[in-house]
Formats: sequence, C-alpha cells, structure tokens
Amino acid sequence: MDENVNDALFEKEGIEKLLEEKKYREIKELFSEEQPQDIAAAIDGMNDKDTVLVYRLLPKEMAAEVFVEMDTEQQEALIKSFSDTELREVVNELYADDVVDIIEEMPANVVKRILRSTDSETRKTINELLQYPEESAGSIMTTEYVRLEADFTVGEALTRIRRTGVDKETIYTCYVTDINKKLIGFVTAKALLLAEEDDLIGNIMETNVIFVHANENRETASNEMLKYDILALPVTDSEDRIVGIITIDDAVDVLREETTEDIEKMTAMLPSDKPYLKTGVWEIWKQRIPWLILLMVSATFTGQIITSFESDLASLGVVALTAFIPMLMGTGGNAGGQSSVTVIRGLATGEISISDILRILWKETRVSILCGITLSVVGFAKIILIDNLIFKNAVPLEAAAVVCISLAATVIVAKIVGCLLPLIAKLCRLDPAVMASPFITTIVDAISLLIYFKTAMMILA
Amino acid sequence: MDENVNDALFEKEGIEKLLEEKKYREIKELFSEEQPQDIAAAIDGMNDKDTVLVYRLLPKEMAAEVFVEMDTEQQEALIKSFSDTELREVVNELYADDVVDIIEEMPANVVKRILRSTDSETRKTINELLQYPEESAGSIMTTEYVRLEADFTVGEALTRIRRTGVDKETIYTCYVTDINKKLIGFVTAKALLLAEEDDLIGNIMETNVIFVHANENRETASNEMLKYDILALPVTDSEDRIVGIITIDDAVDVLREETTEDIEKMTAMLPSDKPYLKTGVWEIWKQRIPWLILLMVSATFTGQIITSFESDLASLGVVALTAFIPMLMGTGGNAGGQSSVTVIRGLATGEISISDILRILWKETRVSILCGITLSVVGFAKIILIDNLIFKNAVPLEAAAVVCISLAATVIVAKIVGCLLPLIAKLCRLDPAVMASPFITTIVDAISLLIYFKTAMMILA
Repeated sequence: MDENVNDALFEKEGIEKLLEEKKYREIKELFSEEQPQDIAAAIDGMNDKDTVLVYRLLPKEMAAEVFVEMDTEQQEALIKSFSDTELREVVNELYADDVVDIIEEMPANVVKRILRSTDSETRKTINELLQYPEESAGSIMTTEYVRLEADFTVGEALTRIRRTGVDKETIYTCYVTDINKKLIGFVTAKALLLAEEDDLIGNIMETNVIFVHANENRETASNEMLKYDILALPVTDSEDRIVGIITIDDAVDVLREETTEDIEKMTAMLPSDKPYLKTGVWEIWKQRIPWLILLMVSATFTGQIITSFESDLASLGVVALTAFIPMLMGTGGNAGGQSSVTVIRGLATGEISISDILRILWKETRVSILCGITLSVVGFAKIILIDNLIFKNAVPLEAAAVVCISLAATVIVAKIVGCLLPLIAKLCRLDPAVMASPFITTIVDAISLLIYFKTAMMILA
Repeated sequence: MDENVNDALFEKEGIEKLLEEKKYREIKELFSEEQPQDIAAAIDGMNDKDTVLVYRLLPKEMAAEVFVEMDTEQQEALIKSFSDTELREVVNELYADDVVDIIEEMPANVVKRILRSTDSETRKTINELLQYPEESAGSIMTTEYVRLEADFTVGEALTRIRRTGVDKETIYTCYVTDINKKLIGFVTAKALLLAEEDDLIGNIMETNVIFVHANENRETASNEMLKYDILALPVTDSEDRIVGIITIDDAVDVLREETTEDIEKMTAMLPSDKPYLKTGVWEIWKQRIPWLILLMVSATFTGQIITSFESDLASLGVVALTAFIPMLMGTGGNAGGQSSVTVIRGLATGEISISDILRILWKETRVSILCGITLSVVGFAKIILIDNLIFKNAVPLEAAAVVCISLAATVIVAKIVGCLLPLIAKLCRLDPAVMASPFITTIVDAISLLIYFKTAMMILA
C-alpha cells in the first residue's frame, strides 16, 4: 500500500497549513508522488478558495484525473473558477462517460458552460449518452473504444491503435464490425501482439462475442462480465450495431452500488446515493424514518393480537406464558430472515433464478423442519434447566410443551414465508431486497403469536 | 446476451438425450458456439460417466477452460478417468493459481497424482502458493506475469511479450524489476504500443507503483485495486521483491465472496463457501442453527425482565401495556439495525475507518434524536387514532405517554449502541459483521424493556 497515505503532511490539515505558509513547491512535490484518488481524498472538504489554489498546483497531466475523483461541490467550485479555455482543456481530457456523470450532478447554467466547451462531435456523444435510462447498460458505457474491420491486417490494426489509442478507455479488446457498424467479432491486444504482421483480422478474430443491448439492465450486464471474466463488454443498439463498451471498472462500481442498495433495503432503509460521511443528518433521517414508521404502525396488528388474547391467557392461570413472547417472535424473525436473505443474495448474484422456486421450497421446508425440531428440543431443555432450575420460575411442563410446539411451528412457517416472499416479489417484478428481515419479521410476528395463543388454548384450556 | 443459453438442446437434459442417442457430432457442434462457463453450467450435475463422455467431445483448446469452471465432484471424476498423459496435458494448460485452487479441494491421492503430472518448476510454484495463509493476498495471486528490465528497449520488451506472453494471465501490465527482482516500476501494454521501438523501458515506465505485501489481507488488497482502478496489483515479499500479481477478476471474486459472507453474518448465519443450491440440507442446518440457538437462549434475559416486572405491571392496573411490548422491541431492533448495518457496510467498502468514530457517533446521535422524536409523535397519534378510535382499546393518555417516551429513549439508545458495536468489534480485531441486527436486537430488546418498565413505574405508579 502507499505508505504516504498515513503521512501527516498529506492530510487535509497538512496541505492547508502548507497553503497558508505559501509553500507551494512543497505541495507540488508532495502531489507528484501520489495517486489521483489519494489527492482527491486528501483535499476533500477543503473550502472553495483552497480547492482552486491546490488544483492549480497539480501536475497538468494529473489534473483531469484528480478532477474526476472529486466530489460534486468541489467540481462545481472549480468549474466556476475556470476560464473558458481552462474548462475546455479539462473537458477534452475527460472521457465522454465521465463528462456525462458530472453533467448529471450540475446545475443547468454549469451544464450549459460545459457543453459549450466541447467540440460538436463530443457534444453529440454526450447528448446520446444522456438519453439512456438511468439503470440501463447504455448509461454506464463509454463510446471510446477501438473499432477494426475484418480486412485489416494485424499491422494495420496496430497502426490504428497507435494512432487513435491514446484517447480510448481500453485498447485491450478491439471490436470488429462490418460496413454497417454491425458487431461481428473481437480481437484482444494479446492476440494482436502474438500474431504475424500480415495476418488478417478476419482470420484471427473471435466471432463468439458476448454483448448486451443498450436497454438491458446495468446490473445484469455487469453480472455477465463477471461471469465470463471479460474486461470490456460491447453494447449494441436494436440493430446489433455497436454503440459503446462497458469497462470492468464501471461494472464493478455498479455491482458495489447495487449491493449497498440491497443491504440498505434489507435493513429497512431507503437506498442512498451518497457516502455516509457526506450525507447530512436530515437526509439520513429521511432515508430511515419511513420504514421505521411503517413497521411501527404495522406492529399494531401484533399488539391487537396480544390484547384480544390477554384475558383468555389470564383465564388459563399460567402467568409465565407472556414472558416467552419475545423469544418466540425473535426466533421466528431470525429464522425467516435467514431464508429470505439467502434467497435475495442468490437472486442478486444470479446464482438463483425464479425457475428454482420448487427446489428452494423443498430445501427450505426440510431445513425448517430440522431447525424447528432442534430449537424445540433445545428450548425445552432451556426451560427446564435455566428457567426452572436457575431462575426458579416454575414453568409447568404443559406450558413448556406449548412454547416448544409453537416454536417449531413458527420456525417452519417463518422459513417457508421467508424464502417465498422474495421469489414472489421477483415474479411480480418488484425488488426482492425489500422482502428481507424487517418485513418478514412483521408477518412472522403476527403468525407466531397466533400459533402460540391457539396452541396454549388447545393444550392448557 | 448469448441467446443459446435458453436453447432447450443446450440444457443438461438435452445433452443427455443426445448422448443417449450417440449424436456426438451434434454435441460437438453445440459446444463450439458456447462459452466455457455456459458449458460447465449446462453439464453441471451430470453423472460421472456422462461427464467423462461429454468432456472428451469438447474442442481441445476449450477443455481446460471448461474444466476450471466445473464443480469439485466432477473435476475429481474427470481426473480419475484421465490417463497420466491426459492429466499432464490438462494441468499444463492451467495457470498455477487455478491448479492450487483445485488441489485445495481434492483428496490426498488425487493431489499426489496432480503434483506428479507437473514439471518440477510448476510444482515448486504450486508448493509456494500453497504456503500463503488462506485469507492473504498471496493466496489469490498468480505467478504468471510479464517481468521486464529497465534497460530493455520497447522493441525488446515487445519481443519478450511475444515470446512468453501466451502463458501469462495478463500482458497488459508488465512489471519492471532490478537485478534483485525488486519491483521498481511498471509499464502498460498501451504505453508500449504507443512508444517508439527504441525507447528505453526505464524512461517510459511509471515508478509510482501501487503494490501489496503477500501477507496483507486479500480483501484489503482487492479493495485497493477497485479504489485505484487497476487491472493487476503486484504482490511483493518482505524484501520488496515481486512474487506475483493479483488480476482484477480474482479481486472481484474475493469481494463478492466477502460481501456474501458479511450478509450471511449480518443475518445470523455462519458463512458458507458453497452456492446455496449445491449445499445439502444438513449443511444449511449447521450454518443456521448455532445463531438461532444462541439468540433463543439469550432471549431468556428479556423473558426474565418481563417475568420480574409482570406483577408490578399488573399492580398498575393498565392491561394495555403488555400489548405494546412487541412494537417497542421491534422498533428498537430496526433502528439499531439500520445504524449497525450502515457502519458495517462502510467499513467493508473502506468508506468508513475507525478514525471516524467520533464523527459517526455525533451524526448517529443527532439522527437518533430526530428519529426518536418523530416516532414518538407518530406513535402517540397512532395510539389515539388507531388503537383508541378504531380498535376501541381505551389506552389512557398516561399509558400512551409512557409508550412514547420509552419509544424515543429506546430508538436513541439503539442507534448509538448500533453504530458503536461494529466499530468496537473492528478495534478489537473482531469481525464487525457479526455485530449486526440479530445481535444488536438482543441487547436492544433488553434495554428497551427496562426503559419501558421503569418509565411505566415512574409515571403510572
């Protein structure tokens, strides 16, 4: 790892101090040894004046790379400080897909200035990219790729790469098209380097291309890249013409974002698109409170079940029964959560699909019976040994039986509901992640209470 | 996407039917258009005899690639069917790190046969790779990379790549070392292609190399690659000599595995290393039952709290109080889970570090106060409107006040405990993921009950 990250000078405070003392040469030297990502992290949160000052101290060839890594507020401050010439220089250094990402976050007047600074061809590309729906493969692709034709020789292909490759995001996979821009094959830089100068591209290219349509979901496209271990995935339009490529770094970012979103949904939060430390208190509140309120209000049902059975329970004369409610509801929630989260994750990574529904149901049924039996045996032992012997609660054997029978039934129902709900959500084209623990818990809570009270009335009445 | 995946012929049953009818040419044709990953998926679960038959129908150059993607049982069956010559052919086609992955899953006698089939140099590499601890960067690296020296010309470098590159996992980043194999820089294939034939490697190489020590954690190393957008990360020994590289596909696999493990731990499961559909019922049971038992037994505390306050509560004469217990405990658990999971995910992606502990605590405190106030206001309205007006429960205003004050206090405590526990775990070098919802819930359940009963005694007694 880069040791300098821990260097006190190379932290925001250190750089601000150097700025104050006008030690600009030291700052320049400091930066020359660092990665753009680390520089962006170090100056993150600086005020606008310092940001502009520091940015001008960056080595020219690195400035655009640092710019891409900065957060939106700082980018906006910098753009406002740029002259038109400076803005043009930066924008021309960036790839079109990065410009699009920046544009999507900027206010209208800044967007106008950025678009004015690009040449007409880039502007056309940007406008095209802006038209793809937010979650589509098209929205994460880049239009900077190397295109070859089948009748090129390897030597000609290498010459084209040398001439145009500087501006391409990757030159390691080149795409071969026919005269209509229809994708007919690909050739890797490795294959080019290992071939003879006068070999024809058409003879050495692979024709078995994995590609994706621009309107396909971006998560599906990214999963595809991981499955086939490819560094770039060509994106085509409805007529099979190549319109761009997705590079592995963008695919990995998408999957990471989607995973974080899934985890947030599974934990009863609305997904956020900002890092936690950069999100304001009110924003976090907005992300968390809707589910908390919803789940609180839906707990009215469980409360109502308890209320309506309370007098019946009291008439049984077994006071200990209420004390087991949290344990029953908790175990049911945990058991259901395990099943639902397993299915949700499997669906997200593509390991499980809807067509597996019967296999999953059969597997979960067996697992739930095993877990139910184990828990009721252990639970019975616990009541006898811990509750009665240690805490001297004197739970009658019949009451213990009620608890353990309810426990087994609850676990079985919870696991079956838990595995089915995400699959049903997927079938209805809803997001399976929303069906995770907190949601399941509310359903399972109500079911487990009903089972418990009904069993108690049957055995003890 | 590859349309053939949905082709009925290209499913296990279709292939088995063709095998039965001895239509070997059709199978060969079918396979020639598919990706190795899809072929492995299609023949997954076939019996040993069919597996061996099908494997021999694969195009030679694809056989090893399909072999790597197959599951352990099928690989073992194939190895047992191979002659020594055949085994040697397959093993020589594989990269050393893939051989190591296979060896780690095979019984001792198969391992011996595999090692006997490798030449002495490969065997040495394999034995070295086997020595790195399971979770280390060394354990996921490959030793097949291109090494250059600073006094090579670009022309000489390209010649070396052409001569040795076929067997290397990637040729897109080449590493420059001094005579002691010490890493001094790197040069990308892009830079080589864009440079002049007689440029010196020493003059065009980048000296600012990001690298990782072989004993560093593999998750840290993989996160580093994503952060810096690099396709290969060099791995060094304690004397800074390069011993291998990690390629992006392996890094992404590691992060995906670690995320699934985290999610499993967060949902009260032991991590598994097999896909769900391939895991037996007893194995799933073993993965799930320990936490279920632990959490069930620990619910004894909450039960005990209810038992010890039950008669006090009864003496207050407000029957409605018990009915609010599930709602209080549930909301506390959800609120705490939100905070803990946010911190756990932030730690996993490297977005949050231990040094942010005070900022997180301050942020969560403010968020928890906002959430606590909102929930107690909404909760009060809910009791008046839903419980009293709709369900006609006649909850006295004092009791509603008790519920709402406890609710606010519980949410605040839950969120603070929730954000602190994973950070404390990290400080103690434990796994933060274990500190997620179910664990927090147990603690928060006990705290919320204590707050509730104490508040009730204070206000209503």
